[in-house]
Amino acid sequence: MVVLLKLKQLPLFDYPVIGNNYVLMITTPTLLLNEEICRRNIKEMADKARRNKIILRPHFKTHQSIEIGKWFREEGIDRITVSSLKMAGYFVQDNWKDILVAFPVNILEIDTINRLAGNIRLSLLVESVEAVEYLAQHLKSPVSVYVKVDIGFHRTGVSWDDHQTVSEILKSVNNSGKISFSGFLTHAGYSYKSRSISEIQAVHDESTSRMVSLKKHFIAEYPDLKISVGDTPTCSRMEDFGMVDEIRPGNFVFYDVTQNIIGSCSVDQIAVAMACPVVAVHKERNEIVIYGGSVHFAKDSVTDRDGKTIYGRVVRNDDTGWGEVIEGAYLKKLSQEHGIIYVPSDIVSQYKIGDIILVLPVHSCTTANLMKEYITLDGRIISRL
Amino acid sequence: MVVLLKLKQLPLFDYPVIGNNYVLMITTPTLLLNEEICRRNIKEMADKARRNKIILRPHFKTHQSIEIGKWFREEGIDRITVSSLKMAGYFVQDNWKDILVAFPVNILEIDTINRLAGNIRLSLLVESVEAVEYLAQHLKSPVSVYVKVDIGFHRTGVSWDDHQTVSEILKSVNNSGKISFSGFLTHAGYSYKSRSISEIQAVHDESTSRMVSLKKHFIAEYPDLKISVGDTPTCSRMEDFGMVDEIRPGNFVFYDVTQNIIGSCSVDQIAVAMACPVVAVHKERNEIVIYGGSVHFAKDSVTDRDGKTIYGRVVRNDDTGWGEVIEGAYLKKLSQEHGIIYVPSDIVSQYKIGDIILVLPVHSCTTANLMKEYITLDGRIISRL
Repeated sequence: MVVLLKLKQLPLFDYPVIGNNYVLMITTPTLLLNEEICRRNIKEMADKARRNKIILRPHFKTHQSIEIGKWFREEGIDRITVSSLKMAGYFVQDNWKDILVAFPVNILEIDTINRLAGNIRLSLLVESVEAVEYLAQHLKSPVSVYVKVDIGFHRTGVSWDDHQTVSEILKSVNNSGKISFSGFLTHAGYSYKSRSISEIQAVHDESTSRMVSLKKHFIAEYPDLKISVGDTPTCSRMEDFGMVDEIRPGNFVFYDVTQNIIGSCSVDQIAVAMACPVVAVHKERNEIVIYGGSVHFAKDSVTDRDGKTIYGRVVRNDDTGWGEVIEGAYLKKLSQEHGIIYVPSDIVSQYKIGDIILVLPVHSCTTANLMKEYITLDGRIISRL
Repeated sequence: MVVLLKLKQLPLFDYPVIGNNYVLMITTPTLLLNEEICRRNIKEMADKARRNKIILRPHFKTHQSIEIGKWFREEGIDRITVSSLKMAGYFVQDNWKDILVAFPVNILEIDTINRLAGNIRLSLLVESVEAVEYLAQHLKSPVSVYVKVDIGFHRTGVSWDDHQTVSEILKSVNNSGKISFSGFLTHAGYSYKSRSISEIQAVHDESTSRMVSLKKHFIAEYPDLKISVGDTPTCSRMEDFGMVDEIRPGNFVFYDVTQNIIGSCSVDQIAVAMACPVVAVHKERNEIVIYGGSVHFAKDSVTDRDGKTIYGRVVRNDDTGWGEVIEGAYLKKLSQEHGIIYVPSDIVSQYKIGDIILVLPVHSCTTANLMKEYITLDGRIISRL
C-alpha cells in the first residue's frame, strides 16, 4: 500500500523523499517505475529499428500495461507481441489492431481465437500440422501464422534444418483457406547465458544465420515471408540485423539485474526498483531483513560475475528516485514474505527498522507480474493486466 | 479460464472428464483442488492437536481463502496465523477474531495495526526493543506480542540462547502499558532439508529442546508464556510435542511435491494439481510443452530423491479427479509461460496437442499465490485474497 502526501505534510517517521512534489509514503513492498528511463529505453529501441529499417513488434508481456503501451505508440509502434490470448484481449481494449501471440497456439482456446480474429489482425504461432489442421477446421475468421523455429535452444519449435516438417506445415497452411503464412519466428533464449558483448554477438550470428538459411530455402516459394527474432540481449546490443525483418524484444522496457550481468544494459537503464520496508537488522552477520519475499520478487536468481547467487541489487535512495548501486550489498535469500539483504560491515549500522530499502530486481518480468502495478516517482499508479 | 458444461453437452474436443456431474472444460492453466483430501488434511491436524492437548493456530498463508478457512472453523479452529496485515484484514471480514501476524512487525503499517487492534485480538511478532518502543508510542489499542526466536535457521529473530536481549525486549513490553506478552515463537525452517522421518525427528528434537530451555528460563517471571512452533514437516510427522503449547503449520492444508520428498506426506495427501494444456509434443526428445510456466507454477524447484531438479510431478487424469503419479514423468523446466515435461519413451506417443496434463506442484503456497483461485473437482470456483 502506498499513501501519497504532499511534501509539506511531513510524515511521522523517516520516509524517504522520492520525486519532487510528493513524499511517497511506502508502507509495504512497492514496485517503483522511473518513467523517464522507461521512455528512453523504448525510444532507443524504436530508433534502432528505424535506423535498421526493421519492424519493431515489441513484446508486451513484461509491462502488460495499457498506459505503458501508449508510450510505445508515441514512438510509432503499431504492432505488438503478447504471450497469451488473455493479454491480447486486454490490449485490444486500447485499440491495438495487429497482435502476435508468440506462444505455440493452444487449440483449447479456439473460441477466444475466433473472437479476437473477428476484430483484429491476429497472428498465431504454429509448429505442427495437427495445430494447423485444427485451426483450419475451426476458424471463423482469417488469421496469419508464423512457424515457430527451434534454432538450438530446444524449448520448442521445428528444428531450423528440418525443411521437410516446415514444408508439410506450409502445405497444410496453403490448403486451409483461412490461414496466411507470415514467416519464421524464433527466440534465441540461450543469449541469456551470455556474459559479454562477444558472447551475445556469437549467439546473434548463429541464430540469424540459421534463420537466414531457412528463409533462403523457402523465399522463392513464399516471397513475402519474414524472419522474426526477439530476445533482449541481441536486440539491445547488436547493430547489424542483416536479413532479419522483425524484432520482438520485451524485457528492455524495464531491463533488470540479469540483463545488466549479461551485458545488455547499464545499471542506469534499469527502470524499475522494489521499495521494501526494513523489519529487522542483524548487525552481527551483516544482514537486514526486509518485507519483500518470493511472493513479491518471484524466485528468479542470477549468478553474479563473482559467482554469488543473487536475487537483487541494492541501490541508494535519493531525492529524485534511486541512485547508484551500493557495492557489496545484495538480496541474498528469499522466503515467501522475507528477504535477506547482505550489507557490508561499514554501512550496516546505517540501517534501522522502518527504513525503506530499494532493490533492483533480478527479473523484472516476473517481479512486475507479482506486483500487479507500478508507482511512478511522482506518485502515479500505473495499472496492468 | 474454465468453462463448465453439464456432462450431457459433450465438448467438441477431447476434454478430460473430471468429477461426476460436470465436464470441466479447462482451456488455460487451472489450479484444481480436491476438497475431500483438503478437508481430511485439516481434520487430521486438528485431531492431532486435540490428542496432544496443544493449540492449533493454522497458518492461512497457503490457502488465503475465506471459504477454506470455514473448513477449519468446522474443525473447531478459532485462532489463526497469517503473514501480512492485509491477509489479517481479509480474514477479519469472515469474523476471525484472534489473529497472529507471524512476520516481524512492520512499523510502517502502524495505521493498519491500529485499525485491526481496535477490532480483534491481534498478535504481532517482535524481535527488537526498537520495535516494541515504536509500538508502545503509537498503539491506540492493546495488542499481544510473541518474541520471534531464532533456533538456528538464521533467517531472523533473537537467538534462542540470548537471554539478555530477550530480557530487554520483555522489559520494554512490560513498560509499554498497551502490549502483553504471549510467548516465544519460532519456525524451524530447516526441517525442509529433511529427507526422512529420522531427519525430521532430529530437527524437531533440537528445535523443541531449545525453545523449552528458553521457556524454562523465563517461566517463573512469566507463568503464562507459551511456546509456538510451526513448520509442516514436524507438525505432520511428530507425535510428541512435549512442552510446546501451540503449533502453526500452514502448507499441510494442500501439501505438495516438496513435502512428499521431505517425507511429511504421502502423494495421496496432496490436495492440489495444476491442469495444463499440451501445446507441443517433441517425441524425439521425450518432451511435451505445456501452457503453464513460472507465472503459473512459480519458480520453486526441489531436488528429487535421485538428484534431479524438478518443478512438478505428473499424475494420471481419471474420472474422479487425478490418479497416481506417472513414474518417470516430471516437470523439467519452466520459462515464463512454457513448461517442459519429460515423459518416458513408452508413453510419450499417448500425448497430443489439446490434451490436459495434470501436474502436482512443487510448492503449493507459491503456485496458489499466482493462480489466485481454485476449481474444485465438482467445478466450483473458490476465490482467495
